[in-house]
Amino acid sequence: MTTYSDLSSEELRQEYSRLQERYSSYKQLGLNLNMSRGKPCPEQLNLSMGLMDVLSSNVDLHCADGTDCRNYGVLGGIREAQELLGSIIECPPESIMIYGNSSLNVMYDQISRSMTHGVMGSTPWCKLDKVKFLCPVPGYDRHFAITEYFGIDMINVPMSDIGPDMDMVEELVSSDPAIKGIWCVPKYSNPTGITYSEETVKRFARLKPAAPDFRIYWDNAYSVHHLYDDDQDFLIEILAECQKAGNPDIVYKFTSTSKISFPGSGIAAIATSENNLKDIRRQFRIQTIGHDKVNQLRHVRYFRNVESVREHMMKHAAILRPKFELVERIFDEELSGLGIGTWTKPKGGYFIAFQSLPGLARSIISSCKECGVELTEAGATYPYHNDPENSSIRIAPTYPSLKELENASHIFATVVRLETVRQLLEKR
Amino acid sequence: MTTYSDLSSEELRQEYSRLQERYSSYKQLGLNLNMSRGKPCPEQLNLSMGLMDVLSSNVDLHCADGTDCRNYGVLGGIREAQELLGSIIECPPESIMIYGNSSLNVMYDQISRSMTHGVMGSTPWCKLDKVKFLCPVPGYDRHFAITEYFGIDMINVPMSDIGPDMDMVEELVSSDPAIKGIWCVPKYSNPTGITYSEETVKRFARLKPAAPDFRIYWDNAYSVHHLYDDDQDFLIEILAECQKAGNPDIVYKFTSTSKISFPGSGIAAIATSENNLKDIRRQFRIQTIGHDKVNQLRHVRYFRNVESVREHMMKHAAILRPKFELVERIFDEELSGLGIGTWTKPKGGYFIAFQSLPGLARSIISSCKECGVELTEAGATYPYHNDPENSSIRIAPTYPSLKELENASHIFATVVRLETVRQLLEKR
Repeated sequence: MTTYSDLSSEELRQEYSRLQERYSSYKQLGLNLNMSRGKPCPEQLNLSMGLMDVLSSNVDLHCADGTDCRNYGVLGGIREAQELLGSIIECPPESIMIYGNSSLNVMYDQISRSMTHGVMGSTPWCKLDKVKFLCPVPGYDRHFAITEYFGIDMINVPMSDIGPDMDMVEELVSSDPAIKGIWCVPKYSNPTGITYSEETVKRFARLKPAAPDFRIYWDNAYSVHHLYDDDQDFLIEILAECQKAGNPDIVYKFTSTSKISFPGSGIAAIATSENNLKDIRRQFRIQTIGHDKVNQLRHVRYFRNVESVREHMMKHAAILRPKFELVERIFDEELSGLGIGTWTKPKGGYFIAFQSLPGLARSIISSCKECGVELTEAGATYPYHNDPENSSIRIAPTYPSLKELENASHIFATVVRLETVRQLLEKR
Repeated sequence: MTTYSDLSSEELRQEYSRLQERYSSYKQLGLNLNMSRGKPCPEQLNLSMGLMDVLSSNVDLHCADGTDCRNYGVLGGIREAQELLGSIIECPPESIMIYGNSSLNVMYDQISRSMTHGVMGSTPWCKLDKVKFLCPVPGYDRHFAITEYFGIDMINVPMSDIGPDMDMVEELVSSDPAIKGIWCVPKYSNPTGITYSEETVKRFARLKPAAPDFRIYWDNAYSVHHLYDDDQDFLIEILAECQKAGNPDIVYKFTSTSKISFPGSGIAAIATSENNLKDIRRQFRIQTIGHDKVNQLRHVRYFRNVESVREHMMKHAAILRPKFELVERIFDEELSGLGIGTWTKPKGGYFIAFQSLPGLARSIISSCKECGVELTEAGATYPYHNDPENSSIRIAPTYPSLKELENASHIFATVVRLETVRQLLEKR
C-alpha cells in the first residue's frame, strides 16, 4: 500500500473528496455514540447481579471475628475484605486498608492530607513554595486533575512500551526535593495499555528520592483485567520489591473492584508499609467512623476468593475482547500502511491509544463529535490538557455495542484519513 | 431528703462505707458494659434488615430518569435520594448533594477543602496565621477532633437549654475575622439532648460575620430521632431562615441515615445554597466519579418517603424509650435531692448528659471503668479534651440491653455518690 505522503496532490484531492462523501453519509446516520470514558457496558454489569442476592434479611451480617457489619466501627475494613483485596493485588491483608467506593477518592485523600499535614512528619506541602509531580504521558486525566487542583506542578515523562522513561525519572527524583510523587498505572496502563517491565518496577523500587516524602502513586486499577485467558501481561509486585530494595515506605498502591463488580458501588483499598499505614490512620480516625462494611461483606460473600474473581474476570473478557478486536481489525483494514497513525493492541485494561500525525488530534476528535462519535477530550491524557504534539487520542471501546462500535470505528478511521489528507494538502 | 453537704462528717463516713460495700459487690459481678458511644443496639439494626431484600438480581437498578445505578457517574446523587433526604431535613432536592456512608466525612471534607482552597474564593485557611472555630460545650467530640486535627483554634461557647449563648456567638463572630465557623448539633443535641429554640435559629440566620468565609456547620444528625410519638422537639429549618435573612450562604447543613438504617452503611448528605454547592462541586468532581448509587437506590426503595421513615423511627423509639426512662428512673431514685449532680431528660437523640459537682467527672468515669462500665472518656465533650470544670459526663444508653443498663445505672449512681462523699470528706 502507498502511504498518503507518497500520493500526488491530485491523488490526495481525489481521496479527500471520496472521504468527504463517506463522512457525509455517516453524518446522516445521526449517531450518538460515546467512547469517551472507560465505562463497563450493561452486559458487564449484568455479570455481577448476583451481588444483589448474597445478603438478605435471612443472612447473618457478622464477620468471622464477630464484627456486626451493620454497626459503626472497624477502621480499615473487615478482615475478610482485606484478605480478598490482598489476594487480588498480591499483598498481605495486614498491609491493606479498605475504603469506600472509589480509589480515586483514596488517592485524592492521600494528596489532600499531604498538603495539610505532610507525609510521616514532613512539612505540609501547602507550606512549601513549590511541589512537583512526575506525570508519565499519555496518562490518566483524573490523576492529573487531582494534582492540578492542588496547584502541584506537573512534569511530563514520556512513556515507552515498558513504562515511563526511567532514566529521566531517576535523574529528576534524585535531584529535585520539590518532586513529591509520580502517578503510575503500571498494568494495562491508561491509555496506552502497556505493562511496566520487571526492570522498570525494580528501578522504581530502587529510587533514591531527594525528598523523604516522595511517594510512588501506584494505581493498580487493572490488576486482573485481562482480555485473554492465555496471553496476559505480568506485573511484578512492587511492595515486596521496595522492601527488598530497603525502600519500604516509597509506594502507595491503590486498587478497587470498580471494574470487577459495579463501578461506583465497589470497594477501594490502599496497600502500603506499616509506617505509611500509621500515618494514614492518624487522619483516617478523624475523617470517618468507618467505611461501608455491609458492602465489604457483600463483595466477600459474592466473590469468596481470588480464583472466582479470575473466573469472573474471564466473563468480562469474553464481552470486551470482541470489542477490542473489532476496533483493531477495522483500524488494520482502514488505516494500516497509510503512514497516518499508530495504535496500541493491549492485552487488558480499558483503552486503545491512537497516535495521529502531529497536530491532528484536536481536529480528529472534533470531526468525530460532529459525526456523533464522542471521544475523550483532546489533550485530556496530558497534564493541563496540553498534548504538545496534539496527536494523542484515547479510545474507550468498552461501553458501546459491537454494532455501534463498528460504526464508530469506521467513522474514526474515515475522519483520521480525512484530516490527514487535509493537512497534507494544506502543506503542499 | 437531706443533701450530702448537709450531712455531718460522721454521717458522711457511714454513707461512704455503705457505698464502698455496694461498689465492691458490683465489682465482683465482673461486668463489661460499654456506654461510651452513641451506637444503635442489635434490635435497632434488625429493624432495617428489609434493606437487604429490596434489591436483588431480579430487580431493575435504574432510576426514574434512566440512570443505571450500577455504572459510573451522577455526582451529587440520584434524584430520588435527594428527594428522600430532602424530605427528612425539610430542604428542596436541588439544595442537596448525596455523599457516601458518613456525614462526618462530609464535614471533614468541608474543612479540609477550606484549608487548601478557601471558601467561595476566600484565602485558603492554611495560608492564614490563625483560624478559629466556636465550639458550643459540651458538644460532639468528633467535631472537635476535626478542627483540632487541622490546627484550628477552638473557643468554648456555653450551651443553655435553648442553644449556645447567642450573645457571645454574635459578639465573637461579628468582631473576629479569624472565626470561620461554629459546630452545631441543633436538635437533640449531642450530648445535652436539647433543641435550639426558634429565637436561637433566627439569631444564627441573622449573624453578621466579620469573615465572609464564616459558615455554620449545622449537623442535623438527629432530625427524626424522637423518643416519643406525641412529645417531640421542633426545630425550625435554618436554610430557609438564612435565605429570609439575606444570608443564604452562611450555613452548611449535614445529615445522614446512619441512625435510621445501618450505621456505616447509610447515605450522607449536605444541604446548602447554590453558591456553596457550586463551590463544593469544583472539588467534588476532582475527588470522585460519584458515590454509591446502588446504596442510594436501596435506601429509596426501602424507605420510599418521609412518612414511612417516621414510622420506622417510631420503631427505633420503642426500643430506645425504655432505656432512657430506665436510666432516668434510677438516677431519680438514687441521685435526686442529694445535691450531687444534674442530668438531662431528652426527648430524642442518643445521649443523657450528666453534670457532677465540679472536679469529679474524671474520677467518676475511672471508677465506673474499674467496675466494668465504660463511659465516654472524661473531657471528650470539650475541645482539647479539656472540661474546665471536670464535671461533664456523657451517657450513651442505646447499645446495652435493659438488664445491662440497669446494672450500669446503679453502678454509675453508686460511683457518683461515692466520689462525691469522698470529695466532701476530703474538704472537711
